[in-house]
Amino acid sequence: MITGLPMTMPLDGLPSTVRIHEVGPRDGLQNEKATVPTAVKAEFIHRLADAGLRTIEATSFVHPKWVPQLADAEQLVPLLGGVDARLPVLVPNERGLERALALGVREIAVFASATESFAKANLNRTVDESVAMFEPVVAKARAAGASVRGYLSMCFGDPWEGSVPVARVAAVARRLFDLGCDELSLGDTIGVATPGHVGALLDTLDIPVDHLAVHFHDTYGQALSNTLAALQRGVCTIDASAGGLGGCPYAKSATGNLATEDLVWMMDGLGIDTGVDLARLTATSVWMADQLGRPSPSRTVRALSHQEE
Amino acid sequence: MITGLPMTMPLDGLPSTVRIHEVGPRDGLQNEKATVPTAVKAEFIHRLADAGLRTIEATSFVHPKWVPQLADAEQLVPLLGGVDARLPVLVPNERGLERALALGVREIAVFASATESFAKANLNRTVDESVAMFEPVVAKARAAGASVRGYLSMCFGDPWEGSVPVARVAAVARRLFDLGCDELSLGDTIGVATPGHVGALLDTLDIPVDHLAVHFHDTYGQALSNTLAALQRGVCTIDASAGGLGGCPYAKSATGNLATEDLVWMMDGLGIDTGVDLARLTATSVWMADQLGRPSPSRTVRALSHQEE
Repeated sequence: MITGLPMTMPLDGLPSTVRIHEVGPRDGLQNEKATVPTAVKAEFIHRLADAGLRTIEATSFVHPKWVPQLADAEQLVPLLGGVDARLPVLVPNERGLERALALGVREIAVFASATESFAKANLNRTVDESVAMFEPVVAKARAAGASVRGYLSMCFGDPWEGSVPVARVAAVARRLFDLGCDELSLGDTIGVATPGHVGALLDTLDIPVDHLAVHFHDTYGQALSNTLAALQRGVCTIDASAGGLGGCPYAKSATGNLATEDLVWMMDGLGIDTGVDLARLTATSVWMADQLGRPSPSRTVRALSHQEE
Repeated sequence: MITGLPMTMPLDGLPSTVRIHEVGPRDGLQNEKATVPTAVKAEFIHRLADAGLRTIEATSFVHPKWVPQLADAEQLVPLLGGVDARLPVLVPNERGLERALALGVREIAVFASATESFAKANLNRTVDESVAMFEPVVAKARAAGASVRGYLSMCFGDPWEGSVPVARVAAVARRLFDLGCDELSLGDTIGVATPGHVGALLDTLDIPVDHLAVHFHDTYGQALSNTLAALQRGVCTIDASAGGLGGCPYAKSATGNLATEDLVWMMDGLGIDTGVDLARLTATSVWMADQLGRPSPSRTVRALSHQEE
């Protein structure tokens, strides 16, 4: 890194701190073709926490048939005892919730869709049926003292339906929130959003902004400008994936999740506190890229690691 | 492309039209290792104009010793007779200006640096000496009826000096403007700017915003969010390079110039008119990538061309 860069220059109207919800170990690794050993996953999470990330989604308690990459959730969680971070896990249903709770997990996430097409493709249910399925999951989680994050995917566009009306997204979001979700993460699963669309959706939602997170994909290079638009509307929780790991299985491009490093570069420049040490995080993503045998798609990781060669 | 995407959703306070200053044929190709035949360059420019770009920087009348890739400027310009676009060219000095004027060119650009280190490295002059060198170039160009664009590089960071004070940039910009430049292009040559820095520089400059352009590099993935910040300050001229061609010779990363396609995706989403047909432009960049034998670094080009496979 060149000393003093990025230069810190705040922009009016933005929050002073942002919580990064790191999704690399779960969302990033779930589509990997190669098998990642459980010990490598554990080391990845330890390193992310050491780099300053305070919320790291660790794994998913989905049936191994659907996501074989995360079939080692029971083995992974006990390896994370000393990690100084919140470690939520994804649970697809009551069975997954029971497995997570049995291991002492007290932060869970569920994954819903704003569109019928993706609900059908991903959950084999209508939107109504999936909300009905989540109702007892959320209730039981809360009864067990767990916090619940609700992912809402396809909030901006859908590969089958094209554009998705903001009123439609707002209606499904409201239902998830009313079930008892503490936080909703608005996902641009195919990466098609632009800043005005982000603003319009946030203006339409009738959910307090401190219960909202945004989850942008960089498929068309729009993730950071959409993040800026969300910050300008008061959103303070941003999902990102270390090194840009993972992506949308419906887009063949290597670029999917917003890279945490690209986000941290912008936050450092804006003087917004994230608690993350960019150099340590970049080193972690370079290490993980070596484990996976291919370079990180993050532009910041590439630029910083090339400079260090 | 998925029908109806990106969804058009304006954001308050942005301009209704933006002029894209396409730099691919000059800035994009000047660092290419492979020799690009003159006929291919001409076809590239014709295709860019057919895709709707209305300002296309065609080449540079620099000494062939310094930029051998653009040594065919005299051969290229006569091949552009039927192109329906403004076709500025870069001239480094009076000799270059004379060569351009002799061919009938009436839009030129000069290239200055905001920092002493880069002035020395790139022009082998101090900033004062380079401004003095440009003075007769600009005067003679204007006397010949030509418009003049002034590039100002290293406006946000410098690989030797680190961060660059905005007051320093504003002072050099003012001198270039006072020489008689019609337009100043503020370059983030190493791609380190963030949106607050962009806003601070634009607030510091005492030059009317309709005489300003921004030239962002995507080295750290920040180009589009910086563009959004510039649009929010009223800038209406954005430099970009088709397919993301080119980049900074001081960063080894493949990512350099903001890709025109990524910009057009955002502009289309925001409902800002650029006149560009994104599908035709993407096809042009895919064609050019084939000529160069490597894929475009533009995320939009990759996403759209993968979808079309």
